[in-house]
Amino acid sequence: MELKHVLSADQFTRKDLDHIMSRSADMEDILNKGGSKLCNGSILGALFYEPSTRTRLSFETAMLRLGGNVVSETDVTFSSQTKGEVLEDTIRMVGGYADVIAIRTKTKGQAGIAAEYSPVPILNGGDGAGEHPTQSLLDLYTIIKHHKIGSEPLQVSFVGDLKYGRTVHSLSKVLRHYEGIELSFVAPEVIQMPEEYRKSGDKISYELTDEILQTADVIYDTRMQQERFEDQKMFRKVRDAFIFTPENVGLMKPAATLMHPLPRVNEIKQSVDTLSQAKYFEQAQNGVPVRMALIAEVLGK
Amino acid sequence: MELKHVLSADQFTRKDLDHIMSRSADMEDILNKGGSKLCNGSILGALFYEPSTRTRLSFETAMLRLGGNVVSETDVTFSSQTKGEVLEDTIRMVGGYADVIAIRTKTKGQAGIAAEYSPVPILNGGDGAGEHPTQSLLDLYTIIKHHKIGSEPLQVSFVGDLKYGRTVHSLSKVLRHYEGIELSFVAPEVIQMPEEYRKSGDKISYELTDEILQTADVIYDTRMQQERFEDQKMFRKVRDAFIFTPENVGLMKPAATLMHPLPRVNEIKQSVDTLSQAKYFEQAQNGVPVRMALIAEVLGK
Amino acid sequence: MELKHVLSADQFTRKDLDHIMSRSADMEDILNKGGSKLCNGSILGALFYEPSTRTRLSFETAMLRLGGNVVSETDVTFSSQTKGEVLEDTIRMVGGYADVIAIRTKTKGQAGIAAEYSPVPILNGGDGAGEHPTQSLLDLYTIIKHHKIGSEPLQVSFVGDLKYGRTVHSLSKVLRHYEGIELSFVAPEVIQMPEEYRKSGDKISYELTDEILQTADVIYDTRMQQERFEDQKMFRKVRDAFIFTPENVGLMKPAATLMHPLPRVNEIKQSVDTLSQAKYFEQAQNGVPVRMALIAEVLGK
Repeated sequence: MELKHVLSADQFTRKDLDHIMSRSADMEDILNKGGSKLCNGSILGALFYEPSTRTRLSFETAMLRLGGNVVSETDVTFSSQTKGEVLEDTIRMVGGYADVIAIRTKTKGQAGIAAEYSPVPILNGGDGAGEHPTQSLLDLYTIIKHHKIGSEPLQVSFVGDLKYGRTVHSLSKVLRHYEGIELSFVAPEVIQMPEEYRKSGDKISYELTDEILQTADVIYDTRMQQERFEDQKMFRKVRDAFIFTPENVGLMKPAATLMHPLPRVNEIKQSVDTLSQAKYFEQAQNGVPVRMALIAEVLGK
Repeated sequence: MELKHVLSADQFTRKDLDHIMSRSADMEDILNKGGSKLCNGSILGALFYEPSTRTRLSFETAMLRLGGNVVSETDVTFSSQTKGEVLEDTIRMVGGYADVIAIRTKTKGQAGIAAEYSPVPILNGGDGAGEHPTQSLLDLYTIIKHHKIGSEPLQVSFVGDLKYGRTVHSLSKVLRHYEGIELSFVAPEVIQMPEEYRKSGDKISYELTDEILQTADVIYDTRMQQERFEDQKMFRKVRDAFIFTPENVGLMKPAATLMHPLPRVNEIKQSVDTLSQAKYFEQAQNGVPVRMALIAEVLGK
Repeated sequence: MELKHVLSADQFTRKDLDHIMSRSADMEDILNKGGSKLCNGSILGALFYEPSTRTRLSFETAMLRLGGNVVSETDVTFSSQTKGEVLEDTIRMVGGYADVIAIRTKTKGQAGIAAEYSPVPILNGGDGAGEHPTQSLLDLYTIIKHHKIGSEPLQVSFVGDLKYGRTVHSLSKVLRHYEGIELSFVAPEVIQMPEEYRKSGDKISYELTDEILQTADVIYDTRMQQERFEDQKMFRKVRDAFIFTPENVGLMKPAATLMHPLPRVNEIKQSVDTLSQAKYFEQAQNGVPVRMALIAEVLGK
């Protein structure tokens, strides 16, 4: 597999995904043995023009665990971009310093522009309402760690804001590569999964029913944002019907997995955290081996 | 000594203190020989939700001098916490990336909460009006470097804002472990040492007298904050009576030590800096070996 | 050559410049071979109290490529200076942690103050309207890479805001050390080169003529700032007459060099970037080997 940039969940074939998943597992082994010197002498440039502690720190950690180093720019109001510099110029500059760039931007499409102009590989860490491909890969990795995938039926239910949540869009596309996965989309109509991401055979629900909880192998929850609703009373009513508690998570199969891209606000109660189904913190932690794999791949190591 | 977290000056026994002081001295030797590789492959997560150049940079320097690496989050307005994430979740996330976390928070008690949820050791870098235990240890280290402690009488005078200064509270508690230390508290009544930190035998003064200056072995000065006084005229009068100048520092014994946790504003004149008693810059520098010792201890190295 | 601090373009003799240029070329070789361990165990303290992604990241990259490490403070509103600490104290503190300090300040002269109080070498990364000596050295390095300098005539034209542009002032002073360099200053009168930087023999032009474009070996362009003009209509007219396009750059000799300290806004069209004369991105990249050379020199390595 030759990987130049990581820009979109669309760019990967099934073979690519298999390779990345296998490499990520190798990286997890390496982490457990105390890290590696594979990328010794290499530098990651981390450009984060939107808040993202989780994504930035896991990219930085990944590079450090590979023996490399990091230079970072995290404050959009305190950078050369405030002097009116275009992204293309910033990228060519940082690409003259670093060996690989991880970037988060406010506007959809900017990671693609960065890739066009960059002399070094670009890792898209989220481009506005666009893509967040490394998140999809760590989500996939988390599912694969806990479930057989591709050989037998697997019921994956997406819950919450399916209209605006880019992680949901991207993960659904990645999962289409695997046989036997049955997707269901559970959300009030106003924030249901857009048509473009649906396939025939997908199930649509407007309520989080006991049946969904009982049959799902994986539930992927996301936050509902108040500002998406015109009717605020409606928002509160809907949101409350979608809160995960020890009671409803208790209905899930013991081997089922409850995921969330984080940060959560109150859509999953903290009292759920200790249940066996709760895997969202492990999911966040999986960002490190997966991003180690991606960094190593784009650097040709 | 087994050290899991560093949360409070209260947690240490005299034996612990002896061990940390001895380890800190070893670390100073290591620093003078160019650093070490003891923590090679380890990562410090530095989470600073309040301004603190001094504490953050000395923690980061300590980890780098031990051969480890650092990931940092320094801007509270530009982090996942702005999206409404609770501290517990942030800590579990960063604890999934880093091997040890140094944290400064706005609110008292948050370092303790962090320790409850963290999978890795927590080093409290100051929790609001609460504790700042690593400061007390570097203060103690500075006193020990310049004075015999525990065997013969040592006169330590705390000067300035003794009511709100957490470094004063913590250091006084640490010093109670040693024999022969005589504490005196020198401050206007409105900001005198709270009863809970006093012991019988302590001396209380409301003015910085020549006698105090002449007899003290250690003077630990702190900043008075204007907003603590209702009467602003009173504030200015009181503050001016507590300013250290070459004239009054000249009354101190040549081997006496003038300390300050820094930053200072004008309570110690810059013209004092070159006098032999002025040890506050060395005191700041001692943060590196002491924090090296603490990092190594909590990592079990 | 013994180099304690790098504060001003004025401090260098011709011999110093020759040495730094030769050392920078060595560093470029080292970069091409994957970096070095020359400064292993050393720490750069980067204090940037003004926005400067380019300068800060290239300093940090330089130290990392030498095998050293970095601690940074980049936010003036989130540092101990916000508590009223004077620069002298901050410098003494950071000088107790790091082995060398790179500093950018808002106010002219502050790098010099830092050097007075610092226990470690100071590298001036720009002090307000004052100096930016490392920029001049990388500018010089870029010119030397593409042109014979000191032996035969070389026509260097400065274009744009010559009155307020500190990079222009410093580079002009550096170039005076070399024989055969003919300087011309091309700018509207209101922002022409100040008398103190002119020598007899320099050419002054108020317009960017075809003749200048056709005869220059090096054109060093800088941004014109709107706020320098009282008459805004005048500003737009003047600025438009100084924009570099594929058409007018096409008039330059094929081996001529078009430079710019960046960031640019619109004074050089993006369509110019692919022309052979465009060297401003390489110029930015040259910041790394030149700063590596300076760091190594001040550390005595």
